[in-house]
Order: sequence, then C-alpha cells, then structure tokens
Amino acid sequence: MPRTLIRDLHDHIGKEATVMGWVDVRRDHGKLIFIDLRDRSGKLQTVSIPQNGVADIAGILRAEWVVSMRGLVKARPEKMVNKDFPSGDIELEVLEIIVLSRAEELPFEKDTEVNLDTLLDYRPLTLRSERSRDILTMQASILDAYEKSLLRQDFTEFQAPALVGGDAEGGAAVFNVKYFYEKTAFLATSPQLYKQIMVGAFERVFTIAKIFRAEKSATTRHLSEITQMDFEMGFIQSHLDVMAVLEQVIRDVVSEVSEKHADIFARFKVEVPSLGSAFPILTLREAQKILGVSEEPDMEPEHERGIAEWAKKEHGSDFVFITHFPTAKRAFYTMADEKDPVFSKSFDLLFRGLEINSGSQRIHDYHEMVKKMEFVGLDPKKFEFYLQAFKYGMPPHGGCSTGLERITARMLELANVKEAVPFPRDMNRIDTLLSED
Amino acid sequence: MPRTLIRDLHDHIGKEATVMGWVDVRRDHGKLIFIDLRDRSGKLQTVSIPQNGVADIAGILRAEWVVSMRGLVKARPEKMVNKDFPSGDIELEVLEIIVLSRAEELPFEKDTEVNLDTLLDYRPLTLRSERSRDILTMQASILDAYEKSLLRQDFTEFQAPALVGGDAEGGAAVFNVKYFYEKTAFLATSPQLYKQIMVGAFERVFTIAKIFRAEKSATTRHLSEITQMDFEMGFIQSHLDVMAVLEQVIRDVVSEVSEKHADIFARFKVEVPSLGSAFPILTLREAQKILGVSEEPDMEPEHERGIAEWAKKEHGSDFVFITHFPTAKRAFYTMADEKDPVFSKSFDLLFRGLEINSGSQRIHDYHEMVKKMEFVGLDPKKFEFYLQAFKYGMPPHGGCSTGLERITARMLELANVKEAVPFPRDMNRIDTLLSED
Repeated sequence: MPRTLIRDLHDHIGKEATVMGWVDVRRDHGKLIFIDLRDRSGKLQTVSIPQNGVADIAGILRAEWVVSMRGLVKARPEKMVNKDFPSGDIELEVLEIIVLSRAEELPFEKDTEVNLDTLLDYRPLTLRSERSRDILTMQASILDAYEKSLLRQDFTEFQAPALVGGDAEGGAAVFNVKYFYEKTAFLATSPQLYKQIMVGAFERVFTIAKIFRAEKSATTRHLSEITQMDFEMGFIQSHLDVMAVLEQVIRDVVSEVSEKHADIFARFKVEVPSLGSAFPILTLREAQKILGVSEEPDMEPEHERGIAEWAKKEHGSDFVFITHFPTAKRAFYTMADEKDPVFSKSFDLLFRGLEINSGSQRIHDYHEMVKKMEFVGLDPKKFEFYLQAFKYGMPPHGGCSTGLERITARMLELANVKEAVPFPRDMNRIDTLLSED
Repeated sequence: MPRTLIRDLHDHIGKEATVMGWVDVRRDHGKLIFIDLRDRSGKLQTVSIPQNGVADIAGILRAEWVVSMRGLVKARPEKMVNKDFPSGDIELEVLEIIVLSRAEELPFEKDTEVNLDTLLDYRPLTLRSERSRDILTMQASILDAYEKSLLRQDFTEFQAPALVGGDAEGGAAVFNVKYFYEKTAFLATSPQLYKQIMVGAFERVFTIAKIFRAEKSATTRHLSEITQMDFEMGFIQSHLDVMAVLEQVIRDVVSEVSEKHADIFARFKVEVPSLGSAFPILTLREAQKILGVSEEPDMEPEHERGIAEWAKKEHGSDFVFITHFPTAKRAFYTMADEKDPVFSKSFDLLFRGLEINSGSQRIHDYHEMVKKMEFVGLDPKKFEFYLQAFKYGMPPHGGCSTGLERITARMLELANVKEAVPFPRDMNRIDTLLSED
C-alpha cells in the first residue's frame, strides 16, 4: 500500500491508509496504546487496540523509532478534536505496524528546552524538535522569497567564490587556508568585490554566499560562518534606488512568510512584522536628534532599539533605514555624499532594533577608486583584478547585504542567532566543542 | 527622463526615450556615427547625426564607455532590419548623450575568442562577452529551475556548512584551515553527512553547497571550488525512488531552459537536450555487455561516451542512468544490494556522455553503519556527531549530488568546465595566476 502523508489523510476518512514517520510520543491507556506519529507534513494520533493484534508491537515502540503503520482513518468525535494540529480531527486505528528503524533511548525528550551547549551537542536530535524545524522552515521560506523577489526584479544569480587570494577589504579578521604550492589562500569575508565585477556584465546580480569571520568573539550574534544574501545593481541615481529594491524584497519576504507560516508565528508568540506604508528613512544625525543623544559616528545597540521603537510608534513599521554614516567609518568603496563628503551614501536597515542589512552606493570611477584606496592605505596593485571592472567602464552602482541568520532570528525574535543555523560554527565549536576534539 | 530598457523600446516607437548601457561597438560612416548600445536586456543600434549636435561627443565614445542616451525611437525599414537581435527592427536617433563612466582602451575586443589564461586574466572584462553572459545566464536558470523543482517535490532547503571539523569521507584531498586555538579545521568536500542528518528532521532536504577539492590535478574538469546541488530524501524503497525525483528535476530544468533560452542554444549551435520518454537505466554490467568491454569496476570516459551514444540512438535520450557500481568502490554509507552485496544500490547519471550526478540509497541502520565504518577502516568515534542521526531513528533514505558547473558545461557542450564558473579556482589560479602573486 503506497504511503499517504499525514496532511493528506482527510481524503481517506473511512478508508485504509499507510502512514510512515517517527514515533513522537507513546501513551498507554490500559489496553489502548496511543502513538503520535510525525512525518514531514504533520502529526497524527494513532490508536492500537488489542483486537487488531498490534498491541504487542505497539507496546515496544519508543520515541524516534521509525515505523510504517497501516490502519483505518477515522474522524474523531467533535469533542475529542485536538485543535493544536491540523490532523487533530482524525485518528488512525492501527491494523499493521512495520518497524523501519529502531532508536536508542533519548538522552532527553526531543522537545525539552535545553541550554545552548546541549542543544548543539545533540544537534542531530534537537534539529527534530518542533522549535528547530519551525526556525529552519522559516529560514528556507525567507531565502526562497528573497530569491524570487530579486528574480522578479530582473536580477541574475551567480556563485561568488569562498576561496580568495587576498583579504580584500582589509577589515575583518580572516581565516587562512593552506593552498597549493605552499601558498596561503583566504576564506572570503564578503562577496563584495565579485558582485561589483558582475555588475559590469549583468547590471543586476545577487548571490547567496558563505562568508567567514575569524573574530575572536563569543557573543550571541557571532558566527564564524555566515550565509549572506547579497545584491548589487547598476545605473542607479543614488543609494535610495538600492533601498527601494531592498524594501520591495523585504515586503515580498514578509508577505510570503506571513501567509505560509501563521502557525509558526503563533507557536513563537511573535507578531507578523509590521511593514507600514513605507519604511521610514532617517540620516544618522536625524536619528540621534530624535533620540536626543550625542553625534557619535555609529549607532549603539540601545540607540538601534530606541529608533526601532520610534519607527514602530510613528510609522507602524518594524523596519527603519538609517543613512549617511560617516564616510570614514564605511568600507573604502563607499561613495561619499557630494553635498557633504564627511557622510556617505550608505545605509543600514534595522529590523526590530537590529541591523540586518548594510549597503551603499559605491564609487564607480576608476581614478577616484584608486585615489580612495591610496587614501585609506590599501595598495591598488593588490586589487588589479578587481580594478579591471572600473578600468573598462563601470556604471553608477550600489548594493547591500542581508544576513540570512540575522533576518531569521529577528523574524522569530530568537535571543541567540545560533538557533537560526542548522550547524553553527563559532570560536568554540564545529559540531562538537573544539576543546573536546 | 526615466530609463527605458532596450527590450521595452518597441512600446516607444515614434516617441522619445532614454536608454543607458555600455558602448558595444562604434562604427563611423562619414558623418553618421553608429553606436551599438548594450544593456542587461539587449542590444540596440543608435545613430548620431550632425544635425542633432551630438556627433562631437559620439565621436569620442569608445567600447565599454557607459552612457545615457536620449533619442527618438524609430522603426527600421524592412530591409534594414537586423534579425540577429530582438531590437534589430528599431534604432535610436540620438538627441543627447551623457557619459556616465569612461573606459580605458581594451586589451582586446571583448568578444574576441581568447585562450583560457587570457580569458581568466581579464575575467572582469571577458565576463561581459556575449558568450560568458550566455553561459552564466544559462547557469542561473539551471539553478533556479533545479530549486523550484525540488520545492514543488516538497523538499526543504538548508545551509550545509563549508567549515568542517574532520575529513569526513576520508577519500578526497582536503584543504586545511587555521582555526581558533591553533586547531585545524577543513573545507567540506561534500555536504553528505549534514544532509543525511537533516533527513532525520525534514525527510526531504536540499542544499546548494560550496565544496572544495585539494587534488593536484589540472584537467579541464578540475576545480578547487565547486557548487554542488545536493538532495537527500527519506522513506524510500530503493535508489530507484531517488532516481525518479532526480529525473523529474532534470526534466523540469531542461524544459525551463529550452523555453527561456532557445536563443542561447542557437548561438552555441547546440541542440536542446533530448529527454526521451524515460531515462534508460542500465546496471554497470549491462552497460559493459552492450559495449562489449570487460567487467571493470568503473566506466572509462570512452565507455561513458559509448553508452551515451547508445542511449541517444535506442531511447532518444541525452541522459542515461548507470546503476550497481561495486560496493567497494563507493563511499562507506552506500547500501549494498541485498540480492548481491558485491554491488551497491548506487547510480550515476550521464548527460551527453559525462557523469553529472552521483547518488545511492544509504545505510540507515545504526549498527550496520558502525560495522561498515569499521570494515573500511574509519573510526566511528570520529563520527559520533553524525552517528547520532542513526542512533535516534533514521528512515531508509538516499540522495544524490549534481555539479552545477558540470551540468552547465554539458548543457552548452563547453570543452572546459572552467568557462562555466564566473571566478574559477584551480591549483594554478585564484583570480590571478598564483605564481605571479
């Protein structure tokens, strides 16, 4: 008998069906054995009764055993309906059980709340918890919606390299790779230079890129390996054009996940993000004026939260753009504002008080780029490959970068971004703790 | 005046429009200056005539200068239509030219056929050639269609890590990374173990993963950094279920690129792949019998080509599955065929005579997996993290892996896979030649 997914069982009420999945919970009520079965589509209550000759085998099943169950699909009486899950209005009266795979006794119940180290030590098990599956389901939908929005906006996807020949931006701490011929290669800290080169060929490009940060930092925000969703576009008037594309992307993402995952938002007791009619845009100085704080060169975390509150209250938006960070504080390729070159045509996008995206208009003139490199102490000779793009005609362009883990974490208001990664890497851990290796 | 893309100019015939792009070619015919302008949507002939006062500036434009041109959109007389490109039936009579960015003199014409080293030395320029843009446009569509097909088939995307703690499969040469605390990490040679772990949580998963191979090999097939499209699925009966999903994916990919990119196939003088009514399936031994060759443990490249010819002739298919490779020749997690354990429930998919995908049913029983590791000389202790997935109940499962560069190269019959990578890495090159660093 072919397998039926749990979510499709409603079409089989009154008939036999075979379901396959994991034993989620077993409850014995006298001679009746209730087993909640879990598959990728949902959860189902099954009941094994002695008359059907399956009680013996049902009695040995334990959590996470993998089974195939043939049985009779029955509608549950109105007052027995479990409204917590979509198949709570039916149950399966089991006629046959086949064990596909046994499981050892679990170190703790799969859905128990555990501390972060335990969560990660037992990741192959804890990934099966409803919470982990919800987070990563949300993440997959964010990524898919992000890509679809950019494709609709005429962007072309490309593969940015992870192995690079130099530490391009000269800022972030970088991992060294032993390459051929005793040469040292590096792990990319950003796909920035490559996506700019690609603008010269495709105008509008995006890449889903792995980037690597060797910073010795063990905060809740820090990861050694990050997934960035980067786009870059040519023929812009200013950074505002980039922000407009980004706002469209974010609106598309939020609208898709709101529709698809109302259940997940409900389980996390988190509201669907508010979009307002337009994301408010403040310069850094305007934001600081609103907060009544001094003119620092960047936003402190508490200021980001303060401005987020303001945006929510005044504009009904969980998103707010901050623009015009000091030119000296942004990467070398950032374009200064011609009206006041101390500030740059740059922006951050805050989502619920945390920066999830950073971008700017870039310098596009070859000579200006070389001059800027020299000004900040970078050697243009080391950038000859990159500089070809500018030598051979580069349009005015800009772009930005969204952290996939960060936007996922903010979407569900997770305290630690590491929950938004299936297999997080940080200074202490690659799957297992490094000190235990 | 807002920008109009070249492909949308047909809606503006008889009216003024502003286009922006790169100077592709300039031709002077007496006092008339013809400039072919290129943007992301197509190519357009423009004509600058002295009466409009634009000849002076048109006269200084050179290849790859970036310009904005305002002009009058005109239908070309029937016999002047250039059928080589979609906008060949219109031209722009230029009224105003604004230079957005200058370009230095090119080292060679952008669309000149050059040798591979020159192609890669000048990658920021050669990416702009029609050939490179065609290849990478095709690649982006393959990737998108691949993902969409798997999403429709109920797969969840996840991010497999690039940084790993051990050289998991023990086979391929691996790159070392200097990690924190003087520890050595490695670059993943495959997302295999992670996608199996994810089956335990999501049943059906896929990942677009960067993998890294440190083999000292400089063949046309070899790359140090590769993009793999991997999927893995639970609750299968055998490897045939995996092959059925893969066949559907390939059919979806071919059907989408055939529809979208008839022009690219035409420019490459390559036929759209033939799918036949079903991909033929041969065991390795059956294939060798057809070819009349001896019973070797693997296919030689000439045998792959021979079987491809057979599949095309007998089944009208550019694709053919070869199954049942010797168990000893496949990775440790491959399931042996219960009917004859010398051979495994494994397969390769050949596309136009080259393997583009490899997969199998995997061992799912914990004890069998541990025994197999010991049998092949791997230490199960080093795999404790991975083995948790099996300890806590793993369904029968299998999966496979398609090389994005390989399928792109076969789609357009490229002689060298490096053309199918925007920024290829090999033992001699990371952007620039390593010996020149």
